[in-house]
Parts: sequence; structure tokens; C-alpha cells
Amino acid sequence: MIQQYPSRLLERAVQEFSQLPGIGRKTALRLVLHLLRQDADDVFQFTDAISRMKEEVKFCKVCHNISDQDVCPICSNDRRDGSTICVVENIQDVMAVENTQQFTGLYHVLGGLISPMDGIGPADLEIESLVSRVSEGHVKEVILALSSTMEGDTTNFYIFRKLAPYDVKISIIARGIAVGNELEYTDEVTLGRSILNRTPFDGK
Amino acid sequence: MIQQYPSRLLERAVQEFSQLPGIGRKTALRLVLHLLRQDADDVFQFTDAISRMKEEVKFCKVCHNISDQDVCPICSNDRRDGSTICVVENIQDVMAVENTQQFTGLYHVLGGLISPMDGIGPADLEIESLVSRVSEGHVKEVILALSSTMEGDTTNFYIFRKLAPYDVKISIIARGIAVGNELEYTDEVTLGRSILNRTPFDGK
Repeated sequence: MIQQYPSRLLERAVQEFSQLPGIGRKTALRLVLHLLRQDADDVFQFTDAISRMKEEVKFCKVCHNISDQDVCPICSNDRRDGSTICVVENIQDVMAVENTQQFTGLYHVLGGLISPMDGIGPADLEIESLVSRVSEGHVKEVILALSSTMEGDTTNFYIFRKLAPYDVKISIIARGIAVGNELEYTDEVTLGRSILNRTPFDGK
Repeated sequence: MIQQYPSRLLERAVQEFSQLPGIGRKTALRLVLHLLRQDADDVFQFTDAISRMKEEVKFCKVCHNISDQDVCPICSNDRRDGSTICVVENIQDVMAVENTQQFTGLYHVLGGLISPMDGIGPADLEIESLVSRVSEGHVKEVILALSSTMEGDTTNFYIFRKLAPYDVKISIIARGIAVGNELEYTDEVTLGRSILNRTPFDGK
């Protein structure tokens, strides 16, 4: 489709928006025209929020989560259990686990998963810093909370090997039927695993 | 769902993004984290494109289309037919008609449709300026190309009444079965209209 923009300024803004993931040119145009209708101050707030975040946001020196300070609010919270580390792929996963309100330990954000297909090796991820945290001796348990994919499994296995020399319990989040899902529609690999990894039922 | 952001800077950027139409908080977070991973210069290009567009873009003095100059490239193009004006709701509609490559006249962008429910009356739209263009006497035909909705029909009727005193042909874009659609699945109002407004068939 030919798309003739009546203004080069508009075209450039649409072009920039359409480089965001999941935003096509039509959506980009809709967003840009929306901004054009807003007050100048609202548009300034929008661009300023992005610029300041990009310039000022930090990554926690301990867990590599995003943070406004050198050490993030989770790592610097004395009331959290420093002996348990939950290893996750990215920042969204920290937020997802936090939202469950079931975990009171600390995190370690890898920044990705090992994926030879995408050229991502262990050295590109925060694995050495995890080993270093464990080697200090305060950590009793490392929980691997990575996606249940080939890349996740590879990364789990690599971390397991790296942590083998240390006296630390390594566990992995349970995989099985999602809560609320019907058995009939669960794929057979998941169902098979959930039978193998069955847990004692205490009647509650 | 509780959503704890690890950084206020991040939270503000997500908040700003989620005010865009059709962007929820989850999508906003994904877009913001994408920008966070980009080079500082790429993020500058993004915010700069939006700021400059907002500050510098103009609206054509003649047709109210978006433009980099006082008069848009369509209105200032001598090779276009100045005696025909196509009336559209917004800038996207200009682009949609232009993309058909079937129209060589000029446009008039109303900036909306009459909608008493939304508090939009004729005075909020560029209708007076359309009447003023027609009153100059060079215009031979006004084509109403508005949406086939209650608001579109109301606006068509209002413009029709406003232009009645002038010696100008007023036409409306054809409504009927969309090209490629099957008769069986066309709604009956559209089908009824397409029978009433049948056109001579010359066998081609």
C-alpha cells in the first residue's frame, strides 16, 4: 500500500513509533495523531518521562533489577530473606513473582536466556555475578524460575552445573496443570510431568 | 492486580505510555523496557521526532489537513482539480482517499463529525470555512465522503443545508456491497441501499 504522509514531521514520528515492538504503521499513525491533538504540556510530559527514564534509571548492583538507586528497594529491604535467591530472566518476571506475594527472598535478573540460535551465550548473561553471590556463603537456596522452554531448560542446566561446587540447595518452580485449566485440554507433556512430579495431598 | 514497579522513573514512563489509545499497562511496560534496551541516541530520535512534530507541524490554511507549510502540498499542487472538494472527517481519511489514486481534486478536513452525544456541534468543526471556500465561486462539486454512521449522516445533512444557497453540485460517495464481499453476508440495510442506488451496467 502506498502511504503518502502530508508532512515529513508527521512521517518521521510515525516511522519512529512503528519501530516499537508490535506497533504497525497504522497504529503508529493513530498514536501520533492522538499526541498531536493533546496539549503541548501533555506531550512534553510524555517525551520527558521517556528521556529521564533512559538517562537516569539504574540497574541494581546486586540483583541487576531496574532501580532508581545503586541498590534496588528489594535488595536493600532488611525484612526480606537474604538466604533465598529467585533467578529470573528479566524485570517483568521479577514483577510477576512479586505480584504473587508468595516470595519474600531476593532476586537475580539474568537479562536473558542462553540461546545459541540468537547468539546469546552464558557470558552475555548475569551468571558469573550469581555464582559470585552464592560463593559468599550466605545463600541457602537458589530457586530457578525461568520459562519452560528449550532456552530456559538450557540455562537451568548451565546454572545448575555452575553452582554444583557450592553448598546451596537448588530448586525449580513447579510445572504442571495451570490452576483453573481442564485436564482434557492440557498438553500431554505437561500432564506427564505433572504426574511424575505429583506432590503429597493432605486432604485440605 | 498489584503492580509494583521497581523504579519511579520506569513507573512514570509506563504511566505516560498507557495513556495512549489502545495501550494497556502491560503493553506500555513492554514498550518502555524495549526503549530502555535501545541506544541513547535511538531513544533521543524517538522523543525528538515527537517533540518536533508537536511543535512545528502546521495545519493547512485552506483544507485544514496536516502540513509542514502554511498551505499543504495537495492544495498548492497546480495539477490538481481545484473545482472539486472532497469533504472528509480527518487526516487519516485524506490519506485513505489519496491511496485509492482515484481522486485528483482538493480536500476539506472537518476535524470531526457532528455528535450531540459527545457535545460536538457544527461550530466545533471546519464547516464555516467550507462554506466560505464554496462561496468564492470556483468550486463546482463538493463530494461528501464521511462515515456511514448516524454522525456522518447528520453532518452530511447539515452541510447540504448550508451549501444549498450556492450553485454547487453536492454528491455523496457510493454505499453498497464492499468489493469482494458475498451478497449472502451483506447486512440488509446495505443491500437495500445498494439496490435502490443501482447504477447502469454497460457490460464491461
